[in-house]
Amino acid sequence: MTSYVSNKDDLMRRLRRIEGQVRGLQKMVDAETYCIDVLTQVSAATRALQAVALSLLEDHLAHCVVEAAREGGAESDTKVKEATDAVARLVRS
Amino acid sequence: MTSYVSNKDDLMRRLRRIEGQVRGLQKMVDAETYCIDVLTQVSAATRALQAVALSLLEDHLAHCVVEAAREGGAESDTKVKEATDAVARLVRS
Amino acid sequence: MTSYVSNKDDLMRRLRRIEGQVRGLQKMVDAETYCIDVLTQVSAATRALQAVALSLLEDHLAHCVVEAAREGGAESDTKVKEATDAVARLVRS
Amino acid sequence: MTSYVSNKDDLMRRLRRIEGQVRGLQKMVDAETYCIDVLTQVSAATRALQAVALSLLEDHLAHCVVEAAREGGAESDTKVKEATDAVARLVRS
Repeated sequence: MTSYVSNKDDLMRRLRRIEGQVRGLQKMVDAETYCIDVLTQVSAATRALQAVALSLLEDHLAHCVVEAAREGGAESDTKVKEATDAVARLVRS
Repeated sequence: MTSYVSNKDDLMRRLRRIEGQVRGLQKMVDAETYCIDVLTQVSAATRALQAVALSLLEDHLAHCVVEAAREGGAESDTKVKEATDAVARLVRS
Repeated sequence: MTSYVSNKDDLMRRLRRIEGQVRGLQKMVDAETYCIDVLTQVSAATRALQAVALSLLEDHLAHCVVEAAREGGAESDTKVKEATDAVARLVRS
Repeated sequence: MTSYVSNKDDLMRRLRRIEGQVRGLQKMVDAETYCIDVLTQVSAATRALQAVALSLLEDHLAHCVVEAAREGGAESDTKVKEATDAVARLVRS
């Protein structure tokens, strides 16, 4: 079972809203909106994607990492390493 | 005239690709894909949005700022301030 | 016990190197080095700080979160929330 | 002449403060302060460095780019490209 199942409806809603933001960006570019205004909306969409990432990360930690730790063994090390690598990609993106 | 007109087709293509990435994310969440794999794709979409932002910024500097500077007057200060504020929003997002 | 004790020498070495980078930046500004070259060094120091942050985060997850999970109870929820909030501050900084 | 000369005292003051923050981080790690509290201070130092970067960038745009544009010729293209590349490094760091 993936860790974000309880959260699925919320994640789907956010992603549909981000899809709408990206379609809005296409309309802005097509209408040749002033570039600084387009940039502001690109930043808003980026922030919304980062918020989705943080929500997925929290679920990963609260479920995958915590469950692996409770089962004992080395699996929790793998889950922690995966989480840290994912954060490194987020921070750099 | 907005500054990115020459670049419009390329920007539209990138934004349509990002829309596809965000729809792909919805499919991944709907199929309950492993959260770390979803996170990797969120980072890819975020990077693609940042690349659009950098392209818009380069156009703004190469056109709006440079043109305002050539015309003289205080307009170039406004354009520079707008650009720096846009970068601050990007760096923080 | 804090979680990064085993890692302390490495963290201290990195932080001393970053202190050196920041002093190098002062010399560059004092010598009126070309701004783009100063900016490149600011980015290098920022990346080095982010690497310290990722190392601290990995220790937090591998020790504080995993230990709290093994002890059971609600403490692991607190540790996960702290970690996610710390990542949110990192991503936004 | 570099572009941030008028701003030099302010930049030096900020960089000395950041040096102090990095030395404070060494003391925190040496005293084995709780990792989340260290992380909070790492984020603060990172934000302070990003603010220095934004100040340098604004000077670069307001002076180097605007001056090159006023002189005409292709030099302003080089300055704009340098600025955009510097922003790309900032956004990724």
